[in-house]
Amino acid sequence: MNNKGLVTPRKLSGFMELSPDKQVVFDEMIDKIKKVFKTNCFMPIDTPVLELSEILLAKSGGAIDKELYHFKKGDTDICMRYDLTVPLARYVAMNCENLFFPFKRYQIGKVYRGERAQKGRFREFYQCDADIIGNESLPIPADAECVNLIDKVFKELEIDVVTHISNRNILFGLCEALGLEKETNEILIVLDKINKIGRENAREELVRLGVKEKDIATLVDLTLKCGEFDKVLKDIEKITDNECYQKGIRELKELGELIKVMGIDGCVLDIGIIRGQNYYTGTVFEAVCPAHPEFGTVCGGGRYDNLAGYFTEKKLPGVGMSIGLTRLFDLLDNNDLLPAHPISSTTLCILPLGDTLSECFKLCAFFKEQDIYCEVNYSERSFKAKLKEANKKEIPFVLIVGEEEVKHETYNLKNMKTGEQFTLSKEEILKSVK
Amino acid sequence: MNNKGLVTPRKLSGFMELSPDKQVVFDEMIDKIKKVFKTNCFMPIDTPVLELSEILLAKSGGAIDKELYHFKKGDTDICMRYDLTVPLARYVAMNCENLFFPFKRYQIGKVYRGERAQKGRFREFYQCDADIIGNESLPIPADAECVNLIDKVFKELEIDVVTHISNRNILFGLCEALGLEKETNEILIVLDKINKIGRENAREELVRLGVKEKDIATLVDLTLKCGEFDKVLKDIEKITDNECYQKGIRELKELGELIKVMGIDGCVLDIGIIRGQNYYTGTVFEAVCPAHPEFGTVCGGGRYDNLAGYFTEKKLPGVGMSIGLTRLFDLLDNNDLLPAHPISSTTLCILPLGDTLSECFKLCAFFKEQDIYCEVNYSERSFKAKLKEANKKEIPFVLIVGEEEVKHETYNLKNMKTGEQFTLSKEEILKSVK
Repeated sequence: MNNKGLVTPRKLSGFMELSPDKQVVFDEMIDKIKKVFKTNCFMPIDTPVLELSEILLAKSGGAIDKELYHFKKGDTDICMRYDLTVPLARYVAMNCENLFFPFKRYQIGKVYRGERAQKGRFREFYQCDADIIGNESLPIPADAECVNLIDKVFKELEIDVVTHISNRNILFGLCEALGLEKETNEILIVLDKINKIGRENAREELVRLGVKEKDIATLVDLTLKCGEFDKVLKDIEKITDNECYQKGIRELKELGELIKVMGIDGCVLDIGIIRGQNYYTGTVFEAVCPAHPEFGTVCGGGRYDNLAGYFTEKKLPGVGMSIGLTRLFDLLDNNDLLPAHPISSTTLCILPLGDTLSECFKLCAFFKEQDIYCEVNYSERSFKAKLKEANKKEIPFVLIVGEEEVKHETYNLKNMKTGEQFTLSKEEILKSVK
Repeated sequence: MNNKGLVTPRKLSGFMELSPDKQVVFDEMIDKIKKVFKTNCFMPIDTPVLELSEILLAKSGGAIDKELYHFKKGDTDICMRYDLTVPLARYVAMNCENLFFPFKRYQIGKVYRGERAQKGRFREFYQCDADIIGNESLPIPADAECVNLIDKVFKELEIDVVTHISNRNILFGLCEALGLEKETNEILIVLDKINKIGRENAREELVRLGVKEKDIATLVDLTLKCGEFDKVLKDIEKITDNECYQKGIRELKELGELIKVMGIDGCVLDIGIIRGQNYYTGTVFEAVCPAHPEFGTVCGGGRYDNLAGYFTEKKLPGVGMSIGLTRLFDLLDNNDLLPAHPISSTTLCILPLGDTLSECFKLCAFFKEQDIYCEVNYSERSFKAKLKEANKKEIPFVLIVGEEEVKHETYNLKNMKTGEQFTLSKEEILKSVK
C-alpha cells in the first residue's frame, strides 16, 4: 500500500498482458488457427486449468517440479496444468469408451510454468495443440495430417515457415546397429544440442559415452543430412539394414509421398531433428522461420507410442503438433511483424451535432444490424474534440448528424484517411463503409 | 494408484468438462457473444488468471475468502482470479494513460471459486463480461449500451430473455426520505431476498432494523412495482421529492427513452431488482428466461461509481454486464435446450475403395481449400465398417472413391440422411455439399 492508502496496481512478472488493439490481433491469430483445425475435422475439448497433482505428476512418480504451480485446497493436492498433453491423456483415458478413434482433437488454452522470468519466456502462455490419437494402432497418414496442419496454419497466419522432419527410428536404429543401444538416449541428447554446444564439444561428450571416433563421424554425418525427401532418403537408405532403421526409412518414405499428394509445401527431411524428450518414438518435426532463424522452433511435434500409459492399459498411439502462441506473438511484436492494427476496432463513429442523439442511436442500430462496427460518441465533449479523438483512434469513417441532416435523412460521411466528405442516405453510407 | 500400477484418471470435482460435440456448441456460444461485443465496438483484453494476492484482496483489506484459490510460489503471494472485474480495475488503473475513455472492453475467460461443490455450481467457470469505464464521468447512454448488449447477445443465442431494470437511487432516496439512511444497506439486503424468505419474514427483519410498519409497507410496495417503463415511472415519480430518489427517476426516464430509440426489446422497469452487493450505485439489471424462471438470473450487471478506488485516485465510473456462461450452458444442457449438434463436425468423409488413398487425399485437399470440413478415413478397417462409422458419427455426406471412379474423375457421393447416391465430378460434389 502506498502513502495514499492505495494498493499499487501491478501484475505478476512473466505474464503477458496486451493493449486492446494488440489483443485484437492476438485473438485474430487464434481464430485463424482454430479455423484450420476445424476445417481439418479436429474437434475441440476444453479441460480445466487445474488438475489433481497425482494426475499431472503421474509421469514423474509424484516428484514436484520447481516450475509447477502447486498447492493444496483443503485436503486436495492441486496443480495448474503445464501443458495440454497430460490433460489430453487423462481425458482420453477417462472417456475412451465414448470417443471415436482416431480421435482428432484440438485445444487452445493457457498453460503455466513458474520458471525464472526472462525475456521471451512466459509463466502463463497459450498453447495451440492438435493431436490424433489412435486405438491400438495409428497409420502414417495421421503424421501427414499434422504436418499438413503446420503448413496450413502458418499460411493462414501469413508467416513463412519450413518444417524440418525426421523419424527417431533412424537414429535409434543406427545406434543399435553400432552396438550402442544402451546409450541411445544419452547419445540423442548430445546430438540434439550439437548446434548449441558445437561439434567439438559434442564429439568430446560422445567419446565420454564410449562412442568410437569412427561411429561418432557416422552419427554426426547422419544428423547433418537435410534436404528434399527423395534425395536424402536415397542418400541414407542403405547405411544399415537394421530393422528399426529401415522402419524409419519406410515411414519417412510414406510420409514424403503423402506430403506431395496432400499438397503440403515447405517440408525438408532433416535427420538432425531429434526433439530432446524421450517422449517421441517415430516421426518428429519442427517448423522454423527461414527469415528469422533467431526465432527458433515456432511449432513442433511428433509421434508417441502411447499417450496414456500411466492411466490405462489401452495402447493409445498418437501424433500431434503444438504452437506456443504467446512466445510467437511476442517475437512477431518485437520484430514489427504483426499485421497493422488500428487503435480502435470501430469502423464508423457517429457524432451528434446539436440535439440529434436519438437519431444517432437509431442510425447506429441500423448499421450494427448490418455488422458494421459502429458506435455513437455520446460523451459530453465538444464536437471538435470528438472529431480529433476519432482521428487519434484511427477510426476510418465518421458520420456527422446535425439537425438539418436529420430533416433530410441524409448525413455527412467523412472519410478520415482522405478527408473527403459526402452527404449520403443511410443506404449509401452502408455501401461506402462496407 | 490402482493395483495395476496405474493412476486412476479423474478430474477435480466441480469442474465442467464437455464431450467434443458439446464443446463445439459451447464454443459457438462464445463466438456469438464475442460477435455482439465486437459489433458494439467493445475491444478485448485478456488479463492473467493469476494475480498478486494484494491486488485481488485489496477490497477485503487482505482477508482471504475461503472460496479463493490462494497459494505461495517462492515469496510471491498469488491468487487465482474469482471474477474479471478486479483484474479490469487493476488493468485500467495501470494503463489509464494509454486508454481512450469511455473505455469499452470485453473479456471472456475462466474464473475460479473453490466453494463447496453442489449441483449447478462450478469451481471453474466462464464469465463473459462487457464494461464501459468513464474518466470522471459517464453519461446514461453507457447504461443503455449495456442493456442493449444483453438484448442482442441473447437474440444471437436464440434465447428469450426479459431484462428487469431498476436504479438503486430510488430505494436509496426513499430510505433517506423515511429517515432511514443509516440502515439503507441492511434494508436493501432484506428487500433483495424478499422472494426467497417471503414477505412475512422480510417484514419481521425490517421491524428488527427499526423500520415502522407504515414505512415497511411503502418500501415493500415500491419493490413490487414492475412493468412498462412509462407506466411504472408515472406511478412512482411523485412518491417523494427526495433528491436522490428524483435522480433515480431522471436516470430511469433517460434510460427508458434510449431503450426505445435503440430498438432494445424485452425490458421492464422492476424496482424489486436490487443486486445484493453494495457495489452498484445506480442502474441495475438482471435478465431472466420467462419460459424458465427456475434458471434464475442468466445475466446481470449495473453501474458502479468508482471502478478502481483501491488502486488510483482517478475517479472511474463504469457500467457493465456479465454472463456466467458455464452455468447457463449447464442449465440449457440439462433441459435439452441446446441446439442440435452432430457427434462429429465432419461434413464430408472420403472413403477409399481399393488402392485410391492418394486420390482421396488430393480430393480432400480440394474440398478443404473450399472450407468444407472434410477428411479421409484412412484407418485399416473394412469399407463396410467405415460406412457404418460415418453413420454413427452422423456425418452428412460420404464420398466413395474406387479405382474406376478415379479413372473417370467422377465419384460416388452418398447422402447419409436420405441414402441417395450420385456419381458426380468434384465441382458438382462441392455444390451438393455446400
